[in-house]
Amino acid sequence: MSKKVSEAVIRRLPKYYRCLCELEAEKIDRVSSHKLSQRMGFTASQIRQDFNCFGGFGQQGYGYNVTELKKQIRSLLGLGTSYSLIVIGAGNIGQALANYSGFEREGFKVNALFDNNPHLANHTVSGIKILHTDQLEEYLQNNLTDIAVISVPQQAAQEITDRVCQAGIKFIWNFSPRELKVPNDVAIENVNLSDSLYMLSYKIKNET
Amino acid sequence: MSKKVSEAVIRRLPKYYRCLCELEAEKIDRVSSHKLSQRMGFTASQIRQDFNCFGGFGQQGYGYNVTELKKQIRSLLGLGTSYSLIVIGAGNIGQALANYSGFEREGFKVNALFDNNPHLANHTVSGIKILHTDQLEEYLQNNLTDIAVISVPQQAAQEITDRVCQAGIKFIWNFSPRELKVPNDVAIENVNLSDSLYMLSYKIKNET
Repeated sequence: MSKKVSEAVIRRLPKYYRCLCELEAEKIDRVSSHKLSQRMGFTASQIRQDFNCFGGFGQQGYGYNVTELKKQIRSLLGLGTSYSLIVIGAGNIGQALANYSGFEREGFKVNALFDNNPHLANHTVSGIKILHTDQLEEYLQNNLTDIAVISVPQQAAQEITDRVCQAGIKFIWNFSPRELKVPNDVAIENVNLSDSLYMLSYKIKNET
Repeated sequence: MSKKVSEAVIRRLPKYYRCLCELEAEKIDRVSSHKLSQRMGFTASQIRQDFNCFGGFGQQGYGYNVTELKKQIRSLLGLGTSYSLIVIGAGNIGQALANYSGFEREGFKVNALFDNNPHLANHTVSGIKILHTDQLEEYLQNNLTDIAVISVPQQAAQEITDRVCQAGIKFIWNFSPRELKVPNDVAIENVNLSDSLYMLSYKIKNET
C-alpha cells in the first residue's frame, strides 16, 4: 500500500518520528492529533489524513500511544535495520559525515571513504579507511553497499554518479550542488546546502 | 513585489541560478524556457510563470540571455553582497561549514565559531577562532552578524537559539535535528540531514 503514498506525505514521516521521539523522552504516553498539530504546525486533519495513508494508527477520540506510533513510523521509515554506506569525496562534508556517530546509531554505517587525492589514501577517519577513487568499482563488486554518498566537487559529481550507478548502486545521497542524472531505477536524495543558504540571503535582502 | 512571491517559487530560484551558472560555463548565450525545462525537469510554463512573479525576464519567443538572467536571479537571491556568519557548535558539521571556502566565494563569511567545550577554546579552524559559548552575547553585541548557524547537539539547540534571538539575530541556519521555536520576526532555514537520510531508508524498504 505504501507505494502509492505521495512524496509529500512520506517527507513528513521523519518529522512525525522526531516529534514522537521527543514526546517519549518527555515521558508522554498518549497524544492526540490536536496536540501533535500544536507541536508540529501541521493541522490535526492533515495529520489524521497522513496516518490514514498507512492504514491509520489510532482509535478515534482516544489519541495515539506514543511508543506504539513511534515504533510503527520507525518501521515504515525502514529504520531498525542496518544499511551500508560509502562516502565518495573525503573533503569537509564527506569527513564530517564519516565522523558523525548519530547515523550509525540509527543503522547507517559508513564502511569506506573514497577520494582521488593520493595523499589521503590509506588515512582513516573515525576508523574508516580512505581508498583511492580508482578502487571504487572493485570495492563495490566485493562489498554489498546500499547507499553511495556523493560529496565530491560539483564538476566531478556526474561522472562519479554514473560510475556508482553502473556498479549497481540504487540509492544515492547527493551533497554536490548539482542536479544529477540517474537511471529510472535509482533513487536520489539531494542535500543542497547552498540552495538552503541562498534562501536566507533572499530573506535578508527582501524582508529587512 | 517580491514579498508576495510564494515560498515554493522562491525555493526554485537557487535551482535556476545553478542551472544558469552551468549554462554560462558551457558558453551558452541564450536559452528558451523549453530548454530550461528539459534541463531542470520543471515544465516550461512553470518556468515562465515563476519568472513572471518577478516581472518576467525575457522576450516572448526569443529566449533568455543566460548571463543577464543569471545576474538578475543572483541579485534577487541577495548574492553579490557580503554576509557575516557565526557558527555555534564546532563539531563535525560546524567545522566542515567553517572550513568550506565555497560559501565565502558567494559572500558568506564565517567570522567566529563557538563551542562550550573549553578544550576547543582559542583553537582555530581555517583561521577562524573558536570562542567559548559563554562569550556569545558579548561577541554579538560587538560584531554585526547576519546569520547564526546552529550546529550544536539537539538538546542544546533551543536554548542557543533563544540566546541568539535575544541578542538580536534575525536569520538562523539550523542543522540540529529539531524544530526550533523562534520569534515571528526571525527567519529560520532548516537542514535536517537525518530527515533526508530516512527518505532513502524509506525507499530502500518500500521500493526494493
